[in-house]
Amino acid sequence: MPEGRACLEQKEQCIMSNGDGNGIEKVVIIGSGPAGWTAAIYAARANLSPLVFPGRATGKDLVPGGQLMLTTDVENYPGFPEGVTGPEMMTAFFKQAMRFDTRVVTDEDPKTGEELNMDMGLFQIFQNVASVDMSQRPFKVVGDGGYEVLAHSVIIATGAKANWLGLENEQRLAQSGGGVSACAVCDGALPMFRDAALGVVGGGDSAVEEATYLAKFGSKVHMFVRRDELRASKIMAERALNNEKIVMEWNTQVVDVLGDEVITGVELLNNKTNETRILDLGGLFMAIGHTPITDFLDGQLDLDDAGYIKLSDPYRSTTNVEGVFAAGDVADHVYRQAVTAAGMGCKAAIDAERWLAEQGIE
Amino acid sequence: MPEGRACLEQKEQCIMSNGDGNGIEKVVIIGSGPAGWTAAIYAARANLSPLVFPGRATGKDLVPGGQLMLTTDVENYPGFPEGVTGPEMMTAFFKQAMRFDTRVVTDEDPKTGEELNMDMGLFQIFQNVASVDMSQRPFKVVGDGGYEVLAHSVIIATGAKANWLGLENEQRLAQSGGGVSACAVCDGALPMFRDAALGVVGGGDSAVEEATYLAKFGSKVHMFVRRDELRASKIMAERALNNEKIVMEWNTQVVDVLGDEVITGVELLNNKTNETRILDLGGLFMAIGHTPITDFLDGQLDLDDAGYIKLSDPYRSTTNVEGVFAAGDVADHVYRQAVTAAGMGCKAAIDAERWLAEQGIE
Repeated sequence: MPEGRACLEQKEQCIMSNGDGNGIEKVVIIGSGPAGWTAAIYAARANLSPLVFPGRATGKDLVPGGQLMLTTDVENYPGFPEGVTGPEMMTAFFKQAMRFDTRVVTDEDPKTGEELNMDMGLFQIFQNVASVDMSQRPFKVVGDGGYEVLAHSVIIATGAKANWLGLENEQRLAQSGGGVSACAVCDGALPMFRDAALGVVGGGDSAVEEATYLAKFGSKVHMFVRRDELRASKIMAERALNNEKIVMEWNTQVVDVLGDEVITGVELLNNKTNETRILDLGGLFMAIGHTPITDFLDGQLDLDDAGYIKLSDPYRSTTNVEGVFAAGDVADHVYRQAVTAAGMGCKAAIDAERWLAEQGIE
Repeated sequence: MPEGRACLEQKEQCIMSNGDGNGIEKVVIIGSGPAGWTAAIYAARANLSPLVFPGRATGKDLVPGGQLMLTTDVENYPGFPEGVTGPEMMTAFFKQAMRFDTRVVTDEDPKTGEELNMDMGLFQIFQNVASVDMSQRPFKVVGDGGYEVLAHSVIIATGAKANWLGLENEQRLAQSGGGVSACAVCDGALPMFRDAALGVVGGGDSAVEEATYLAKFGSKVHMFVRRDELRASKIMAERALNNEKIVMEWNTQVVDVLGDEVITGVELLNNKTNETRILDLGGLFMAIGHTPITDFLDGQLDLDDAGYIKLSDPYRSTTNVEGVFAAGDVADHVYRQAVTAAGMGCKAAIDAERWLAEQGIE
C-alpha cells in the first residue's frame, strides 16, 4: 500500500506513516474552530501528535476556522480586553496548536506549522473529512481530497451552522458586520445596537431568549413570526408577551434586508394579507435554529432531537462510541460561545488522552 | 440604614444602592480567577452590572486572580500562541470585565474599572466574602471587610487550592517556576521536564494519571507513596505498575526539596525503616488532591464526596439552590484548566441571565 505523498499521486487507498509508529494516528481532530484548535493544543502538549482535518475553504459546511471566520468583533472571549476580530482570534488558536506537534491535512499531505509558515492563509489547501468508519478499530477517516488514515481516537468538533433566511442582502450585511447577526449574546451589546429598533426572526424558545436579551439594549425589539403564535414554551412565550419593549409581528416574513454599509430596515411580507411594508431597523438577528454538522457521521453517533451529538456523560466529551469524543457547537445547543467551545475542546483532548492511556496507547 | 461609603465610615450594617434600582444586586460573583472574570464579562455585557468579591490579597483561601497568579508560564490557554504568564493573563481578564459594567468590592466601596485605573495591582484593597445567606431572598452576601449587599443571584467561582506538602523549599520553587508544580497537565510539557527524572507525590487515581502523563516527557517518573500500595482504582494502579518508566517508591515521604533556582532533587524518608536518602530529580509534581473553597457556604449547597459543589445539571452551572450558580474549579474535580473554568464562567452568567429573566428581573 502506498504511503504519504504517494497516496495522492497514485490516487489509491493508502495510509500515512505517522501516529503510533505503526501508521495509526493516536488522535484525529475534525474541525478547526475554537473547539478543534483547543483540542489540538491539549493533545499536542500531551504528546499525541494530533492530526487535524480543518475543513474545506470552499465548503458549504465545515470551513477552516469555523463560524468565527465570518465574525468581525469578538468582545467576550476572555483574554482580549480590547476585543479581537474572529479571523485574528482563530489565527492565534491555529498558531498555538501548530507551535506544538500538530499536523493538518492538506491537499499536499499533512503539514506541520513550520511547513505552513504558521500561515492559516494557506487554508485554501486544507482538507475536509468525507467519512469516518467507526465499525472498525482503529477507525478509518477519509478526507474529501482522498487522504485516508487510521485512528485510535477521533474528536468531532465540526460545529453548527446558524440557519439564515438565505437573502443576498442578509448575507452581505452579516459578513461585513453591518448589523445582521445570528447571535444576540455575541453581538447584542455592540454600541451600534444601543437604543436602536431591532428585529428578531423566529418564534421558538431561542427567539424569545434573544429578543428578551436584546430588549436590554434596543429601543424596541420586533419579533417576526411566520405563524400567528409562538412555538416557544408557555413560560417563554409569556416572557416575550409581557415585555413592553417586545413587539410581536405575527404572520410576518422578512423578504429583504435594506441598507448599504449598515442595515437600515427590512421589507416585510404579511403572509395572510400578502401585503408588503418597510420597517426601519438598526439591527436584525436570526433565531431560526442551527444545523449541527454531522452528515459525514452517517448515523454512527447518537444525536439528540435537534440533531446535536449526544454526550454519554454531559459533563465530559464522551459519546456512545468509545474512543470518539465531541466538543463545541456540534454537541452544544445551549451556549454556543467561543469560550465554551474551547473549554469543551480541552475536555475532549484530556478525555482522549486518558482513554488512550487506558488502552495502553501512549 | 446608611448606604454606600457611609457603611464603612459608620461601621454599621448597610446596603449599597446599586443593582436593580432598589438597592439589590442582580448578580454577585464570588471569585476572580478565569471563571469569575469570564462570568463578569458575560454578565456585564448582558446589562446585569455584576458585583465581584475578588478575594483578599492576604487571604489563605480565595485570593484575587486565583491560582494563576502563582503560575509563571501558561502555554495552553488558547489565544496566546507565544504563551503568557498567569498574572498577565488574569490582568487581561480583569481589564476585559472592568471595560464593561463590572464593579469590584474593595475596602473603599465598590469600584469601577475607571476608578481603579484598570489596575489590578490595586488588589491589596479587594474584599473577600465572609458569608452568603441563602435562607432569605434576595440572598445576603457579607464581605470580610464589612460590606453587605442583597443579591437576586450569586455565582460561586472561588476555585480550589492544590494541596501541598507544606515545605518551605517546595513553596519557594513552586512560586518561582523552579520545577515544582501541582498540575502535570498544565506544566508537564515545559522544556525543562523533557528527559528529566521526575517525581509525583501521591498514590490515588490522579497521581497515577499525572505520572502516566509525565512518563511521556520525563526519562523516569518516581511515584512517592506513603503506604505500601496505591489508593488508586485497580485499573489505574495497573496502568502505573505496567508502565516501564514509572518507578514506585513505597512507604516514602518527601521531607525536603533541594535546589536554589531550580529543583535538583528531594530528600526522602522511608517511613518503615526511618532511613532518609537523597534522590536527584528535575521536577516534582504534587498529586495529593485539591481543596475546593466552600467553607463560607456553611453547608448551604450540596457538595460531592470530595467537597466540590455538585451541579444539579452537569451540563449547566445550576446548583441545588435556585438562583445560585457555580463555575470553575470549585465545581470541577476532573479538568481544572483555565479554559474549562472560563467556559463554565460563561455558562454561569448565561444561566443567571436567563433565570433572572424568568423571575422578571431584567
